[in-house]
Amino acid sequence: MFDMCLLGTGGMMPIPGRYLSSLILRYGGISVLVDCGEGTQVPLQKLGWGFLNIDAIFFTHYHGDHIMGLPGIIYQMINQDREKELKLIGPKGMSIISNLLNVLFGDIPFTVEYIEIEDEECMNVGDITVKNILVDHTVLCFAYSFEVKRLPIFDVKKARALNIPVEYWHILQHGENITKDGNVIYTPDMVLGKSRKGLKVSYCTDTRPTESLIDLVKDSDVFVGEGMYGDPLDIEKAIKKSHSTFIETAFVAKEANVKELWLTHFSPSLKNPAEYIKYAKDVFENTIVGHDLMTKELHFENS
Amino acid sequence: MFDMCLLGTGGMMPIPGRYLSSLILRYGGISVLVDCGEGTQVPLQKLGWGFLNIDAIFFTHYHGDHIMGLPGIIYQMINQDREKELKLIGPKGMSIISNLLNVLFGDIPFTVEYIEIEDEECMNVGDITVKNILVDHTVLCFAYSFEVKRLPIFDVKKARALNIPVEYWHILQHGENITKDGNVIYTPDMVLGKSRKGLKVSYCTDTRPTESLIDLVKDSDVFVGEGMYGDPLDIEKAIKKSHSTFIETAFVAKEANVKELWLTHFSPSLKNPAEYIKYAKDVFENTIVGHDLMTKELHFENS
Repeated sequence: MFDMCLLGTGGMMPIPGRYLSSLILRYGGISVLVDCGEGTQVPLQKLGWGFLNIDAIFFTHYHGDHIMGLPGIIYQMINQDREKELKLIGPKGMSIISNLLNVLFGDIPFTVEYIEIEDEECMNVGDITVKNILVDHTVLCFAYSFEVKRLPIFDVKKARALNIPVEYWHILQHGENITKDGNVIYTPDMVLGKSRKGLKVSYCTDTRPTESLIDLVKDSDVFVGEGMYGDPLDIEKAIKKSHSTFIETAFVAKEANVKELWLTHFSPSLKNPAEYIKYAKDVFENTIVGHDLMTKELHFENS
Repeated sequence: MFDMCLLGTGGMMPIPGRYLSSLILRYGGISVLVDCGEGTQVPLQKLGWGFLNIDAIFFTHYHGDHIMGLPGIIYQMINQDREKELKLIGPKGMSIISNLLNVLFGDIPFTVEYIEIEDEECMNVGDITVKNILVDHTVLCFAYSFEVKRLPIFDVKKARALNIPVEYWHILQHGENITKDGNVIYTPDMVLGKSRKGLKVSYCTDTRPTESLIDLVKDSDVFVGEGMYGDPLDIEKAIKKSHSTFIETAFVAKEANVKELWLTHFSPSLKNPAEYIKYAKDVFENTIVGHDLMTKELHFENS
């Protein structure tokens, strides 16, 4: 299934008992990490999903608390003789990452692909479809959604009735036409039932609430969202520093009609985030205060 | 007094429950750190000695597990508007550190002084006298000793009998002559008693045992020494990778006549270092298996 784990929940700096905000997702043999601040390799070790095999690391932005754990992860990958390519993906400005790795390691013995993406794009890593939008922070910063699509039901009775050879079934189910001598002979709609809801996780820290964030997050199964400040009175600080309060992120969750909101990226001064949960719950009931190593398996709905 | 804390005890990578090897010392309002691998800022926070005021950071060498926590510490210093100069001190090759900080921060708003030292030197940071020697690792690597000297007893009766003005007493006690019109009129030996033992902490990871290491470590109150491998049968691995076993470091401690040996820099594969303590104790009884945040106050002997 589609597994997710919130590796850490801190903003700005790791503190005792709280690693920096980072998310790992895995589906169909592929795993992707979102951000890696100082120390992220430790919860990755605790989790035991084999972090040395991560396929891609997405960066929301390049502030230190989101990137400084990368060298440690690369260092272990080198020590473990990784051969597989690693994709590093983020907004423009990725030279900070390549320069950092170049200073520390020189030539890395496996391929590192640096991918700078535009403000709004859609790409696939394995069967995970990733979209990004630009959010409202002090520097260029992205929010991401990660979707796993579900194939429509394949109507075996119809396929048999139409005498469609079995070797075409898989192709049709994946939405592709069957052609012969340049002519389309079978189309997916001949054998496919209604479309089915997939799974969606979205991730956004370091922003003011925005309309386009609501669009990106729309109908997520889990929205991992910024919880820099719990006290609603910290709104001025949030505006000044381009962060969000619990209430503001809860409004995004409500407007976007998500199933669950996990708050993360807590200010180091927020010793007990649960103290402020009621403010978020008044707006969006299904808000959960994130904690390090909070994990969930997402399953397709019955249909 | 002279305080020391072993912040972490790991080698190669931070693992759950074990930060990377690092030592902090403080004396007379000065504090120095030795090495800072990924995550060192967290035990520094736990310790509560105000790590943002560290005066100098010494590096044994520039392998990732000894330097990757520096950016996080600098980041916090910048955020906290540090103004005081910071000294970074280590072997030749410090450009890796300056390049790393340059890539991440550009201009740092406080002065960072990069000091490359020779294979054998002696320097002072406040009242702490630091010596270094080259050890035997795969790259240029130093061991350090940190000494706090104790002033000899000042003989007030003698000083009064000789009619030495009180304003000279402090100068004489610090070992300096008093001159008048270019002539020496009072010398320290006129008023000083016998010399008194100071305090000494030495630190060495990442090496094979060497003769010069024994000399450096000689008569230390605490020798913090390499414990990469506990099992004596791992000697071949230790030789191949230029590290030491518990027994080998215990021999150094014995030969150097130190008071206590604290083992540190354990291999990640060494889950329970205490399991092998008996091998070290057979050689040097006062061996202690280091643990994160192990702290000691050193006091001058009565005399």
